[in-house]
Amino acid sequence: MMLYDSMRHFLSPADLTSDERAQILARAKVLKADQSAPERSALRVGALYFNPSLRTRVSFEQAVWRLGGNCQTLNTGSDTWQLEMDPDAIMDGDKVENIVEAAGVLGRYFHLLGVRSFPGSQPWEIERTEPVLQAFARHTGVPIISLEGTMHHPCQSLADHLTLTEKFGDDLRGLPVTLSWAYHPNPLPMAVPNSFALQAALAGCDLTLACPPGYELDDEVMAQIDRESKANGGNFRVNHDRLDGAKGAKVVYVKSWGRKDLWSDKAAERESRQPLRHWQFNDEAWEQTDSAKVMHCLPVRRNVVIAASILDSDRSIVLDEAENRLWAQAALIEHFAKMQGVLA
Amino acid sequence: MMLYDSMRHFLSPADLTSDERAQILARAKVLKADQSAPERSALRVGALYFNPSLRTRVSFEQAVWRLGGNCQTLNTGSDTWQLEMDPDAIMDGDKVENIVEAAGVLGRYFHLLGVRSFPGSQPWEIERTEPVLQAFARHTGVPIISLEGTMHHPCQSLADHLTLTEKFGDDLRGLPVTLSWAYHPNPLPMAVPNSFALQAALAGCDLTLACPPGYELDDEVMAQIDRESKANGGNFRVNHDRLDGAKGAKVVYVKSWGRKDLWSDKAAERESRQPLRHWQFNDEAWEQTDSAKVMHCLPVRRNVVIAASILDSDRSIVLDEAENRLWAQAALIEHFAKMQGVLA
Amino acid sequence: MMLYDSMRHFLSPADLTSDERAQILARAKVLKADQSAPERSALRVGALYFNPSLRTRVSFEQAVWRLGGNCQTLNTGSDTWQLEMDPDAIMDGDKVENIVEAAGVLGRYFHLLGVRSFPGSQPWEIERTEPVLQAFARHTGVPIISLEGTMHHPCQSLADHLTLTEKFGDDLRGLPVTLSWAYHPNPLPMAVPNSFALQAALAGCDLTLACPPGYELDDEVMAQIDRESKANGGNFRVNHDRLDGAKGAKVVYVKSWGRKDLWSDKAAERESRQPLRHWQFNDEAWEQTDSAKVMHCLPVRRNVVIAASILDSDRSIVLDEAENRLWAQAALIEHFAKMQGVLA
Repeated sequence: MMLYDSMRHFLSPADLTSDERAQILARAKVLKADQSAPERSALRVGALYFNPSLRTRVSFEQAVWRLGGNCQTLNTGSDTWQLEMDPDAIMDGDKVENIVEAAGVLGRYFHLLGVRSFPGSQPWEIERTEPVLQAFARHTGVPIISLEGTMHHPCQSLADHLTLTEKFGDDLRGLPVTLSWAYHPNPLPMAVPNSFALQAALAGCDLTLACPPGYELDDEVMAQIDRESKANGGNFRVNHDRLDGAKGAKVVYVKSWGRKDLWSDKAAERESRQPLRHWQFNDEAWEQTDSAKVMHCLPVRRNVVIAASILDSDRSIVLDEAENRLWAQAALIEHFAKMQGVLA
Repeated sequence: MMLYDSMRHFLSPADLTSDERAQILARAKVLKADQSAPERSALRVGALYFNPSLRTRVSFEQAVWRLGGNCQTLNTGSDTWQLEMDPDAIMDGDKVENIVEAAGVLGRYFHLLGVRSFPGSQPWEIERTEPVLQAFARHTGVPIISLEGTMHHPCQSLADHLTLTEKFGDDLRGLPVTLSWAYHPNPLPMAVPNSFALQAALAGCDLTLACPPGYELDDEVMAQIDRESKANGGNFRVNHDRLDGAKGAKVVYVKSWGRKDLWSDKAAERESRQPLRHWQFNDEAWEQTDSAKVMHCLPVRRNVVIAASILDSDRSIVLDEAENRLWAQAALIEHFAKMQGVLA
Repeated sequence: MMLYDSMRHFLSPADLTSDERAQILARAKVLKADQSAPERSALRVGALYFNPSLRTRVSFEQAVWRLGGNCQTLNTGSDTWQLEMDPDAIMDGDKVENIVEAAGVLGRYFHLLGVRSFPGSQPWEIERTEPVLQAFARHTGVPIISLEGTMHHPCQSLADHLTLTEKFGDDLRGLPVTLSWAYHPNPLPMAVPNSFALQAALAGCDLTLACPPGYELDDEVMAQIDRESKANGGNFRVNHDRLDGAKGAKVVYVKSWGRKDLWSDKAAERESRQPLRHWQFNDEAWEQTDSAKVMHCLPVRRNVVIAASILDSDRSIVLDEAENRLWAQAALIEHFAKMQGVLA
């Protein structure tokens, strides 16, 4: 549980207790089924994007509206709003506002604040501390909901969990799930795979990480996944073979991400992944599985990351995952709004 | 009627039956007169702009709000969201998302989706197929409402129709209407004049298209206008004389647009229209009419397209047209939302 | 009172009568205390930004929502929407829309319109006429609420007034208040200090303007402050000494702004202020005061304009000011909406 001054935030899948998670998933299903007009509430939510977004922006704003509240989306390119992160800086340069006041003011306007801040181009050991999300958590004075950080995309993995329960029932313990790396022309963030794997571990799945050597997830997250798998009745293993790693899976989550040791050298990373172009999830790979459902957080490169033949069949549940962003987030926001005393 | 998989869309004025059109226009007047607070509904509408917009963006968002719903505006510059339109492409280039997933996801979040996509710089025969709107209609899974495409701007012409009925009564059959081309420094899209003329034909007006030779509307639309005029008790003719074309009109719709044969060569088009600078709708032209009301979709170049003396007099009804965007769209959206079962 | 065609606007703190001001401030406190869910109203408000904004954009939109209405924020960079301000211009150049139609259309969609338009780089005597706000006031047909112009930021000073009454009671007559200039690397607009000083004069405060020679406020505003101070039982004086000017103050409003005589020559202004770097509000200055509360409109340059030691202590009430933007604006908008007959 992430705690600052006794304020709770949602920056990682592990920031909810298992009771809370079960309650939120159940509530999400109720909200999804009930398409009646929501009553107007007092809830004011902000959504602050340091990086662009379509899916998250829409599903988060609609989720708040589903609760009768108002979500104000703030697209604040890192270029246009130069925030000083050091409260003691002498601000005579380019930066016009300090995080202390920027976050403090938003905390006066909103009951909850969503924040998206992607990694930049520094080494992984620096990026993984994600100073922007941590600073908002420290200075805003209201709960921060991550709309994707460097380490985690917990709203995505909550929606993925909801999707899995729709297909396989509420108890996912022992479900054979593979998280499979795939080739993509660019090194992508690691937040989605970190979160999906951790979420699966929290749910007690029988989890395989299938990836080329060097593409393991964040070290601390790997240890956390291992620990949570054991604690929740699941298993966790790494398999460096694309096909063998998919063997027997009932779920394959396909995703591309960058390798940690080349995080700050994108050109070298691109070069190093050229021999991995065959890591596409296609019919050949699917044949290894136990009639698996195929997941991806979107957007997906067709015929590069996943074959169109899979995406266009009922083996793919990617649109269900996307839709469930709305409902999982609605239940999550409601949960936090109740803690804040804004919703009854 | 545009039909994909039995899903109805609104991409052309002809996508409504005459009964539906009458019903929507009547409902628009009720909504306009009733300024009471709307009840909150379950309606979620998206408005996706590949090109910028002010009037449409405001009137469409306010129309949804008038119905108790929530409209989320998505300004997606063609530059920032590179959509791949071929579902079978191997997506290893610049494009990050395929229309299949992009549209499919939006269809999971919204009950209706408005889309604006302007023509580019390819030849007219290619532009007129408007691949973006057609792809969204095919892949979104909910009704698409055109917020201006290449061929049509049906929300504008519905508002124009509403405006005409306010001034001339519900039955517009035989009303002498001139659509008059005007000079503008740049070759503009053809969607508004195509739609206005077709809408007037559907209403059975006595329609004159006044334009220089070469500036006729799209060939198929011209044929459709001719056909619909006859079917609805009206007439349609082309007049290449600026003043004679306005003779006896009770309504003159002034608009500039580009010529089809120079569509992809903007520089040559600009050159070719230099001798047409006198095609301004001014007092001299107005004197030819039967005290005509003057219309334009806005924005209008004052003293180039229309003389300020006309715009600043009660001969101009351009602000009424703009206001009626809100009410015509509210009635239209309500109609589609009822078909979707979202509004009762 | 700013009046065009008997339409009232809010472009200056003096655009409200003292009775109205008292009523709005009282109502703001009620709205702030009552956190229940607002009922949906028919209110449609637009907020048009020719310059970027975060605080104003959020607080204004949330204020309208607090009243059950809908606020549509329009970010219209001066670059992307080239408005022609002369109704009689021959518009054959770059400008695509005339203020007459632009404002007229927005007046058809909204019951009230907020507009922000900052000064450019012309001499002060030209900038101070603020053609953009004045043109919208003339042509929109509904009340214009300034979201910061060249001369005034009346929503900010109304919130500042509300904040002062929370700390010092409703009657501020005779309260020792200092408006203190501070060094900033760039010459900033004068709207906030003009408005704060005028607001304090209207409230009858004992007002000191502490600034280096040459940094006095706008000449007409200075005369108006002097006049209103006397009329409302207060005092007004200028003190060119940073420390002496703060002496005995119970409130110090710190702000940086540019000098009028170098308004259009930013480089020369920057040069001329180099000897003024010691004009920082720090502990040394605060020691001169009578345990003053320290105010600033934000964003603030830490350790340049105000020392972090002050901002991080309970001497600073800058977050209260920011929060009160929401509540003061909600009461203000409600007041105008009632005049327009939209709210009961």
